[in-house]
Amino acid sequence: MSVIEKTAAVVTPSEARQSADAAAQIERREGAKVMTSWQTGRAARDARIAAGAGLAHGKIVEAKDATRLLEAVIRPGDRVCLEGDNQKQADLLSRALLAVDLSRVKDLHMVQSGVVLPEHLDLFDRGVAKRLDYAYSGPQSARIARMLFGGKIELGAVHTYLELFARYFIDLTPHVALIAAVSADREGNLYTGPNTEDTPTVVEATAFKDGVVIAQVNEIVEKVPRVDIPADRVQFIVESDKPFFVEPLFTRDPAAITEGQILTAMLAIKGIYAPYGVQRLNHGIGFSTAAIELLLPTFGERLGLKGLIATHFALNPHPALIPAIESGWVRQIHSFGSEVGMDEYIRARSDVYFTGPDGSLRSNRAFCQTAGLYACDMFIGSTLQIDLQGNSSTVTTSRIAGFGGAPNMGADARGRRHPSEPWLKAGAEADPDSPAPLRRGRKLVVQIGETFGDKNVPLFVEKLEAIELAEKLKLELAPVMIYGDDVTHIVTEEGLANLLLCRTAQEREQAIRGVAGYTDVGRRRDRNMVACLRERGVIRRPEDLGINPLDADRSLLAARSIKDLVRWSGGLYSPPSKFRNW
Amino acid sequence: MSVIEKTAAVVTPSEARQSADAAAQIERREGAKVMTSWQTGRAARDARIAAGAGLAHGKIVEAKDATRLLEAVIRPGDRVCLEGDNQKQADLLSRALLAVDLSRVKDLHMVQSGVVLPEHLDLFDRGVAKRLDYAYSGPQSARIARMLFGGKIELGAVHTYLELFARYFIDLTPHVALIAAVSADREGNLYTGPNTEDTPTVVEATAFKDGVVIAQVNEIVEKVPRVDIPADRVQFIVESDKPFFVEPLFTRDPAAITEGQILTAMLAIKGIYAPYGVQRLNHGIGFSTAAIELLLPTFGERLGLKGLIATHFALNPHPALIPAIESGWVRQIHSFGSEVGMDEYIRARSDVYFTGPDGSLRSNRAFCQTAGLYACDMFIGSTLQIDLQGNSSTVTTSRIAGFGGAPNMGADARGRRHPSEPWLKAGAEADPDSPAPLRRGRKLVVQIGETFGDKNVPLFVEKLEAIELAEKLKLELAPVMIYGDDVTHIVTEEGLANLLLCRTAQEREQAIRGVAGYTDVGRRRDRNMVACLRERGVIRRPEDLGINPLDADRSLLAARSIKDLVRWSGGLYSPPSKFRNW
Repeated sequence: MSVIEKTAAVVTPSEARQSADAAAQIERREGAKVMTSWQTGRAARDARIAAGAGLAHGKIVEAKDATRLLEAVIRPGDRVCLEGDNQKQADLLSRALLAVDLSRVKDLHMVQSGVVLPEHLDLFDRGVAKRLDYAYSGPQSARIARMLFGGKIELGAVHTYLELFARYFIDLTPHVALIAAVSADREGNLYTGPNTEDTPTVVEATAFKDGVVIAQVNEIVEKVPRVDIPADRVQFIVESDKPFFVEPLFTRDPAAITEGQILTAMLAIKGIYAPYGVQRLNHGIGFSTAAIELLLPTFGERLGLKGLIATHFALNPHPALIPAIESGWVRQIHSFGSEVGMDEYIRARSDVYFTGPDGSLRSNRAFCQTAGLYACDMFIGSTLQIDLQGNSSTVTTSRIAGFGGAPNMGADARGRRHPSEPWLKAGAEADPDSPAPLRRGRKLVVQIGETFGDKNVPLFVEKLEAIELAEKLKLELAPVMIYGDDVTHIVTEEGLANLLLCRTAQEREQAIRGVAGYTDVGRRRDRNMVACLRERGVIRRPEDLGINPLDADRSLLAARSIKDLVRWSGGLYSPPSKFRNW
Repeated sequence: MSVIEKTAAVVTPSEARQSADAAAQIERREGAKVMTSWQTGRAARDARIAAGAGLAHGKIVEAKDATRLLEAVIRPGDRVCLEGDNQKQADLLSRALLAVDLSRVKDLHMVQSGVVLPEHLDLFDRGVAKRLDYAYSGPQSARIARMLFGGKIELGAVHTYLELFARYFIDLTPHVALIAAVSADREGNLYTGPNTEDTPTVVEATAFKDGVVIAQVNEIVEKVPRVDIPADRVQFIVESDKPFFVEPLFTRDPAAITEGQILTAMLAIKGIYAPYGVQRLNHGIGFSTAAIELLLPTFGERLGLKGLIATHFALNPHPALIPAIESGWVRQIHSFGSEVGMDEYIRARSDVYFTGPDGSLRSNRAFCQTAGLYACDMFIGSTLQIDLQGNSSTVTTSRIAGFGGAPNMGADARGRRHPSEPWLKAGAEADPDSPAPLRRGRKLVVQIGETFGDKNVPLFVEKLEAIELAEKLKLELAPVMIYGDDVTHIVTEEGLANLLLCRTAQEREQAIRGVAGYTDVGRRRDRNMVACLRERGVIRRPEDLGINPLDADRSLLAARSIKDLVRWSGGLYSPPSKFRNW
């Protein structure tokens, strides 16, 4: 009630009338200056552009003048979006920003989805930036943790992508956006190429709220292959000396898939995809889901599931999905971003992917996240830690990787109003007693992994390190990736736990312990209760699903190497050199 | 397990290897034809464009040829998005589509957010269209109900906007989009004007998945004021004989606001906005929320709340908000669409609204719905019926109005990971026992209205007519607008019920009955339990909040007429003639 305490007694009608009329009078007197006094943002924007114009020929600024341009356009304390995506990086502009004169540019509030380049954090070390709101920081996760503990970064929040994009339009609107594109024409029309990613969203929020948009481009051309961003939303173009940095984040070498992962993939296909009839879905980027993609044309084909499952995806162009696509499993894929080496394959498979008039992929993270939220019936992915309530996190006390899209896709959209078979079946399992027309469905949210992950670190823990981190950093929310009450299934090599069928917190805990294998969490199970959960079908072992663990053989993979994927693609997929061993 | 039953026994590794290699061989043999056989959509799109080209000069087709164009481009059974927004209508194209030769165009699957014009339903009467997936049908709600009962329409689902947009990218991608814009240049660049609304979303889903985009425009110009849609996403332009239809849906005449609505507005401001400190929010379009907007500069000012509440909105340009804006309450507004008559005011208040380089509003329904979902702490709106569990619906057995954005904004986003004071406070009230760092917040979802609404129809009912409708139409989901477990507060002239503080279904029911006034639901309350809920602060009467119902006087409204709003705007707001009585 803090706000209320400050307030006077309730107003009387006469007082109110006076204040209303007074305000109206002031307004009428000020009528004349309104046009100027209510367009301060517009005026400031024009001043920023004018300040930068001296360095530009038309909209084009030479790379060597990039830092001076940023010094001219950016003001201390500005909210700046330095793109900063999951894959594509405006690396030239990040280096240019790092070099600014601190007397002119400092204490910036960075609002960018990806904190990926060392420069992104150097900005905070140098004092160019002060506050951070972000979504993903994979490669910088260890350093960002150290800097948060060291107080080098004032943390706003760790968001899921769509959540950060939402705030761009409400309370985190950028003053300046520093973006990356493949090419620009002299008017400033931009071609992003396949990695459109966040760019249209960042530009829309900035350009239409009196902000300034500066783009680095790989080249300036007479005519762009397609217009991803119209020229009138872009104020300055910097031609880069080399192409922007983009990382192949979604390439999983089939050669690295273990038989344990193959077993979990078999359990998922036969124990979840098949009985729920999951057709619209998103896959995480782990090896277990890559194994699922590679088992569809073999194990899935034999189960007669072609056309019945995994037909529509919200997914990046995973190379591991090539065999399933070539075998006719996949009807349509909408993508958040692209993947290095997949360009020619995508171009030749336009029936499957979203492509532009130029033939190359058009990705869009905002729309694909929206699709993952509202139009998919399942999210399946991996995590680092799962606790006894089923809460999971990729955050540890030494690594703050961020969440990316998992929180958005790893929960049921309560605004959803269209039914589908998998969604209704999951809802009925969770809530058998509600009257059908009032019973909501549930999105399938599946966590898949081996009980002991990388370096034999147990997947299951009594307490998430994320909670310890929250206490240390005094965060109001522990950085949980997916909350236990949103998870519907957990799959490990020991079996499949259907949490939708658990009726008490205790059953839930034992269902989790019951698939936690030889981890401490697994060994502390209540054997009788786990046995009874298995009888009820809450826990299902491989044999319960007619799967012989000995059949979990690498030869089940439709492709066993990157080279196999190239072959499947008819030579259209050209993997980055780091994945080539031939 | 239906799918599983069809399946053979699990494959052996050797079988799998054979199938994998076989598939790979087939692929290699077919390598040559890949380029064609996987681009059927692209080829079909080119054929559609070629078929229409004969009627076009460049991309421009005369209005008289519109029907022939649609006959040339559209195929039987196509998924067609006929825009079809909340406000803006591609009316010329809807008339043109209605006139097609049924031997060439029929059985279309309409996927459009708004079913607003009579022609939208005439299409089904004539057999041009067969199946419908939509989100909102305000003015056609009675007829659409009759046609559903009559089997004239095969219903997909009634969505919330963002949900339908999501499906555009997964399983409801349009083959053809028929859209509306203000102007086009000869290349086909489009200017939507302030009512951008759904257009960028519809065009993105269609143009980048081998679809055809046809735009009706009010005029063809040398240069568009700004590029809302780039030319390479648009195949045909039809110049309309008159401007597209757009309805002023968000204009509420202050003269029509009742003292009962003013009282509910006072209760909401002092009982919810103030104690939670709600700054980021969305308002529904009812008169009670219009009253809240008009009380901010008077009642709100006296409570000392300026700057502490209602600073950032996801909201259309409501004329009723003008006095609050002029009084310095509102920092920023992002809009779904625009509002007739507000153009000059918005242009002159660019500090508040999102505007383009041309100075006019840039709205965007997809991004504003995303903002309402993830970046707002409160949704407050009205409904037609509320049942004993708190489920609400605007659907009755005789009217199926659709949900628009309410389901999306009227629920907590479970993917949300950023804290805010109101969200955390609501979460703590709902779940006081969870450990803080693992406790999630809750969005405030408020239903506000008088116990007896239009024509003295009671707001509270024992059973929603939506359930009856679901039974009659054999729908798998009753058309519930907002589910009871998502509602946090109900406000009527009798008082305020905080459902977050209810611990049992029974308490919840009595809290609802306790503010249901003299409706049957209200009269059947358990007086002792209601008294005890009031002692606990679950129910709060006006006097509990220091509000004297006699002060709920129309003179509290900052503007009491449309003319007052014009005066507040300094003459910048020019209301449509139907709202002018001077």
